[in-house]
Amino acid sequence: MSRLWDKGLPLDERILRYTAGEDHQLDARLVDYDVRASIAHAEMLAATGLLSEDDCSKICTGLAELRASFDAGEWQISLDDEDVHTALETRLVAAIGETGGRLHLGRSRNDQVLTALRLYLREVTQDLGNRIGNLRQSIDALADRHGGLPLPGYTHMQHAMPSSVALWCGGFAEAFDDAAAGLRAAQRRINKNPLGSAAGYGTPGLPLDRELTTSKLEFDEVQEPVTAAQLSRGKAEATVLFELTLLTQDLGRMASDLLLFYTQEFAYISLATDTTTGSSIMPQKRNPDVLELLRATSATVQACMDEALQITSKLPSGYQRDLQRLKAPLFRGIDLSIESVDIMAHVLDGIEFQAENIVLDPGIHAAEEANKLVVDEGLPFREAYRRIAARFTR
Amino acid sequence: MSRLWDKGLPLDERILRYTAGEDHQLDARLVDYDVRASIAHAEMLAATGLLSEDDCSKICTGLAELRASFDAGEWQISLDDEDVHTALETRLVAAIGETGGRLHLGRSRNDQVLTALRLYLREVTQDLGNRIGNLRQSIDALADRHGGLPLPGYTHMQHAMPSSVALWCGGFAEAFDDAAAGLRAAQRRINKNPLGSAAGYGTPGLPLDRELTTSKLEFDEVQEPVTAAQLSRGKAEATVLFELTLLTQDLGRMASDLLLFYTQEFAYISLATDTTTGSSIMPQKRNPDVLELLRATSATVQACMDEALQITSKLPSGYQRDLQRLKAPLFRGIDLSIESVDIMAHVLDGIEFQAENIVLDPGIHAAEEANKLVVDEGLPFREAYRRIAARFTR
Amino acid sequence: MSRLWDKGLPLDERILRYTAGEDHQLDARLVDYDVRASIAHAEMLAATGLLSEDDCSKICTGLAELRASFDAGEWQISLDDEDVHTALETRLVAAIGETGGRLHLGRSRNDQVLTALRLYLREVTQDLGNRIGNLRQSIDALADRHGGLPLPGYTHMQHAMPSSVALWCGGFAEAFDDAAAGLRAAQRRINKNPLGSAAGYGTPGLPLDRELTTSKLEFDEVQEPVTAAQLSRGKAEATVLFELTLLTQDLGRMASDLLLFYTQEFAYISLATDTTTGSSIMPQKRNPDVLELLRATSATVQACMDEALQITSKLPSGYQRDLQRLKAPLFRGIDLSIESVDIMAHVLDGIEFQAENIVLDPGIHAAEEANKLVVDEGLPFREAYRRIAARFTR
Amino acid sequence: MSRLWDKGLPLDERILRYTAGEDHQLDARLVDYDVRASIAHAEMLAATGLLSEDDCSKICTGLAELRASFDAGEWQISLDDEDVHTALETRLVAAIGETGGRLHLGRSRNDQVLTALRLYLREVTQDLGNRIGNLRQSIDALADRHGGLPLPGYTHMQHAMPSSVALWCGGFAEAFDDAAAGLRAAQRRINKNPLGSAAGYGTPGLPLDRELTTSKLEFDEVQEPVTAAQLSRGKAEATVLFELTLLTQDLGRMASDLLLFYTQEFAYISLATDTTTGSSIMPQKRNPDVLELLRATSATVQACMDEALQITSKLPSGYQRDLQRLKAPLFRGIDLSIESVDIMAHVLDGIEFQAENIVLDPGIHAAEEANKLVVDEGLPFREAYRRIAARFTR
Repeated sequence: MSRLWDKGLPLDERILRYTAGEDHQLDARLVDYDVRASIAHAEMLAATGLLSEDDCSKICTGLAELRASFDAGEWQISLDDEDVHTALETRLVAAIGETGGRLHLGRSRNDQVLTALRLYLREVTQDLGNRIGNLRQSIDALADRHGGLPLPGYTHMQHAMPSSVALWCGGFAEAFDDAAAGLRAAQRRINKNPLGSAAGYGTPGLPLDRELTTSKLEFDEVQEPVTAAQLSRGKAEATVLFELTLLTQDLGRMASDLLLFYTQEFAYISLATDTTTGSSIMPQKRNPDVLELLRATSATVQACMDEALQITSKLPSGYQRDLQRLKAPLFRGIDLSIESVDIMAHVLDGIEFQAENIVLDPGIHAAEEANKLVVDEGLPFREAYRRIAARFTR
Repeated sequence: MSRLWDKGLPLDERILRYTAGEDHQLDARLVDYDVRASIAHAEMLAATGLLSEDDCSKICTGLAELRASFDAGEWQISLDDEDVHTALETRLVAAIGETGGRLHLGRSRNDQVLTALRLYLREVTQDLGNRIGNLRQSIDALADRHGGLPLPGYTHMQHAMPSSVALWCGGFAEAFDDAAAGLRAAQRRINKNPLGSAAGYGTPGLPLDRELTTSKLEFDEVQEPVTAAQLSRGKAEATVLFELTLLTQDLGRMASDLLLFYTQEFAYISLATDTTTGSSIMPQKRNPDVLELLRATSATVQACMDEALQITSKLPSGYQRDLQRLKAPLFRGIDLSIESVDIMAHVLDGIEFQAENIVLDPGIHAAEEANKLVVDEGLPFREAYRRIAARFTR
Repeated sequence: MSRLWDKGLPLDERILRYTAGEDHQLDARLVDYDVRASIAHAEMLAATGLLSEDDCSKICTGLAELRASFDAGEWQISLDDEDVHTALETRLVAAIGETGGRLHLGRSRNDQVLTALRLYLREVTQDLGNRIGNLRQSIDALADRHGGLPLPGYTHMQHAMPSSVALWCGGFAEAFDDAAAGLRAAQRRINKNPLGSAAGYGTPGLPLDRELTTSKLEFDEVQEPVTAAQLSRGKAEATVLFELTLLTQDLGRMASDLLLFYTQEFAYISLATDTTTGSSIMPQKRNPDVLELLRATSATVQACMDEALQITSKLPSGYQRDLQRLKAPLFRGIDLSIESVDIMAHVLDGIEFQAENIVLDPGIHAAEEANKLVVDEGLPFREAYRRIAARFTR
Repeated sequence: MSRLWDKGLPLDERILRYTAGEDHQLDARLVDYDVRASIAHAEMLAATGLLSEDDCSKICTGLAELRASFDAGEWQISLDDEDVHTALETRLVAAIGETGGRLHLGRSRNDQVLTALRLYLREVTQDLGNRIGNLRQSIDALADRHGGLPLPGYTHMQHAMPSSVALWCGGFAEAFDDAAAGLRAAQRRINKNPLGSAAGYGTPGLPLDRELTTSKLEFDEVQEPVTAAQLSRGKAEATVLFELTLLTQDLGRMASDLLLFYTQEFAYISLATDTTTGSSIMPQKRNPDVLELLRATSATVQACMDEALQITSKLPSGYQRDLQRLKAPLFRGIDLSIESVDIMAHVLDGIEFQAENIVLDPGIHAAEEANKLVVDEGLPFREAYRRIAARFTR
């Protein structure tokens, strides 16, 4: 196995292990995207005369076969491969001969990884949007089942104003709609085409057609100038992780409410038995572990975003290997968010409100009564407030 | 001085000091926005018949006079006032009598502060956009002065490919354009009207017209349902602070480049004398302190965002006093970002590149030569790469 | 007003404002510590023959008088002073003439500010330790008043095992003892003497006696070599802020428990009336704002620590102006922690448990019964567990 | 496979997958520690008469065999096992029969996991201390090879005062000694015995001897009262991660210096060829990737600490499932720190300073000259400073 940049010099095994890190595992999810970007690149090279149609055809077929065999579990990216890009090129050359070596003309791993990551981000955020849609349906279904039930409207965790299950559901429904809209807005940073910026300074002497790869890969625009591409690394990643932080905070706040409602003292809700777990020592317990983990989730996702942001901070411009470390927190934050959205929908489907246990504090209508005094008697609100308040002063 | 919710009970001075915190200082910048929102609210009350036209007129005139006297330095928000909302209402009643007490009908400080903050955020982000525009002009001016100069294009902090001052400027120009676009995109979260959600559960018995305040205050839409308003607190704030983190990271990375260019070893640039400072002990030094502080800036702004995000995490829904703590990191992050954008423009105006010191490594054209071998001789890129590389293997 | 490093060159006012930042305000708390360190330095210079006894005496008297007049409010550090060090030296020269200019021999503002900050940190952490002691007394007093009351012991926010107010208090008492011990352990990083490292590379040609200032200022040891001093900046600060994060998390978790206990649904406790606040719109409310703010506190303190850590990350060694930015988060985190410890003690003094509302779930003794089956009948625990569990399976 | 708390109720597979998370993978490293703690627990049960000597012997032998077969790769913890504790107990019962079910008397997974984690932390931090010792030796060896070489002492990244390779090495040596001391100080939080606190409220009706397990497991003290144990979860973890943040920041700052020294413009050092890597597109490059990744490391470790701290913040007291999420960032931060310390030692061993390229700025002796004027001519330092400064004013 030879690395793309191998010139026959010794490379210490420990250095390889440290520098390649977990890339060979992380990159599995990028195979499809790297193949797609490579095919677009090859077709562009052919269109601009830098690659013969015949070679282009061999390369594209070879790449498609490698993707198929990867999906079939016939090969994996190994530590020796270092990353997805080397793994594919090496195997392509092995499969179709030296023609495979014509593919890397006019690109660098610097723009290659950026392109693959953006294609991945575009797809995974759309997928997440759909999952949030499912969660919304579970919220709506809960509102359909119990929406008419009165609930105390809390401020400061105290009964404040009359509310309802419908209003409780509705607040979170708006929040998750906003989260989905946030992920759509993040496309602005995702959908710029870095391909053709190569190592970050373009490709002197090569007449690449960056508009062509842009349209083939359905990007919104070419990212220009070439120096902008590497300087923007981490921004789409951080933007997605920021949106996921808001999303998982809403999951966490919903979990906080439900954990409160599930205490014996509130007893506002029951959970489906198969969504609770038991205790190894206390036989009577049915625990809402899943809600506790949902409450904890934004801690992890926010830390992923912070890690991504700290990786890029203060770096000189131009590609730096530090940027490789962006992948791990990005994938970790995305995966946990996906699982958490799905599981919350599942939990909501099993929730029943216990109408008999929900008793509103009598004082909860005080503001309404003050409003009524204003409307009926024309009192200034402050005066009405003082009259009602007098009842509550002990 | 009496607080809005005062019912004659003792309030421990220490508790007031702790709970009001620094609000009386922070809220100074909200006076104008709270007045504007209050006037829109009063006019809406009048339009729906909940306030006479005459009272409305008195209230609006009174508020405008209070704003004018505040701007003239005639009064300040004190600790006893607790916050801007109480400060204004108290003085309004003092000025126009019990009619002033009619203003608080159908609202709560919960929706009031949210409204004022959003009006403020809308304006300050637009202002920041303009300042970023000025910074862009300074970058363009630098590119005009020195754009044609060659610069090494660095990867891994090593000479990699030929670049130029124009390309260096261009990369950052794109970054700051993106930052400005990010702030515009943040309007999506800023421009929802919370007014009328009151304490978070609406105003039972009062026929408010939330569309009317939406149009008067130029919001994009009513935020609905009422429970969504408090649940969304912190999101516009965090979104702006996130965008400012990216913006100040770009400032910091530009500063990192310039600090490198300013070392005696690089000596690529000179700084205007009046932008450097001296040493208390080493008489020969001219120090680029301003660039170091710019490099440090994103640490502070990211911490402001993290603080904002941690404040809302895990909270039960409904208003919680924790949310008050959002203002300090929000204002701190905004103020520092504004100063930093302005000062960077000023620093750039004084930079001169020192052409005689910029010498590109001869190997910097190796990729170009490999490309040429491909184009001229039809070699696969990998083969061309190996031929050129052979020259560099020691 | 002339700055220490002023050589008559123009200094742009905006640059001064940006680089000096808020130092002139922040440094007020350092006057006493800088005076103490300066006196120790002057006495050391005299002892090593670098300053005459007479000049030393004038300098020390002058500094003491400046401290006294500062404490009396007769002068303040202005923006033009830039920082406490310049403010003091300038006024010293004004007061005692050119002899004042002999004080800066063998030191730099780099080691001066580090020395003053460590003296401050030593004192303020000791003060915090005392305040935590007061808080411990309030916890003990609460345990004395109500310790015998049974409480549910919660896991997963569910009744799990029998507990008591004494056990609840005891857990937090151990936590705060640990926090106090953590602050004492932080002295290890605080108590190294940086004075004499000057700009970070010592004082060529000057025979300073660093052991002498170490003993005069009661440091544990000289920090050596001289290059270690600036490299360590931020570490004592971050260590203290880390300990304060743990401390304020315990305050926040105590507040979370109390907020739960204070809900109408639990109703386990009452709060002293003068520690609650009211609502501007709902006349019936008595709100536990102070506990909510205590819950929010660790968000701010952790952000202060993160800011401090991010400021130093990735910097080349040697003094960098970035380090100046450490002071603001350090002071902010300390001040809020002090206020929060004090106010929690005050809140606890006003808490009464409401015995009549505390009802333990009958199942709470299940583990105890399983244990009894093991002891009495010799069953394996798992078998006993299964027998008891059978009762709870619906 | 049956879970410890299984009472025959349906458990949704998706819930299991979400709640068990990656525990079955993470827990592999805890097998040895959980076995050790279980043996100590069994022996204590026997000593207090709650377990027969014969059963104790069977249990201890069974556990030791399970550890041996685990180390031999004969079994793994599976998702169905949920965690290390269940995996061991289930297999113990399978191996030795119902006697295995006697082991869980008087403990809970809550105190079990805490005990295993603390035993692990004690050992891994000692191991890290040894590795830091190796790094120190590499620094000393570098100082031995090149210590006498002059280096510019930088402030503000400008030549400031004369320094040397020895002083550069010495500053970092002190920093790493401090890091090692910090890890030793962290033992204070690690070395408290939680075993016997069970679910967090002790073991009603069982006369456990917690002093005995304390001495068997070599803890410093029993953690008391029982409620303190779960309240302290996350503190030892966060403390270790905080110390690792400081440690990896020092690695990162050393890497920043070396990356600067390795630029073509400085060219102060060469790196061993086998510690550099190549470029996929630029054949002439030898890149210091390993140093860039070392610079990036503290971003990850600080994020691990932040994640840990955010997980515990605001939680009510008593065990919460959120705490399970502490393991992933803890292990991630520790593993990366270990690798980074090791690789830095390796990189340092291959560094050679290039004496011929290190040229000190002539002005670097200005402070020394000012000092000399003071000593020789008795000038006040300020006057000497002004005289020397006059030479540098252009």
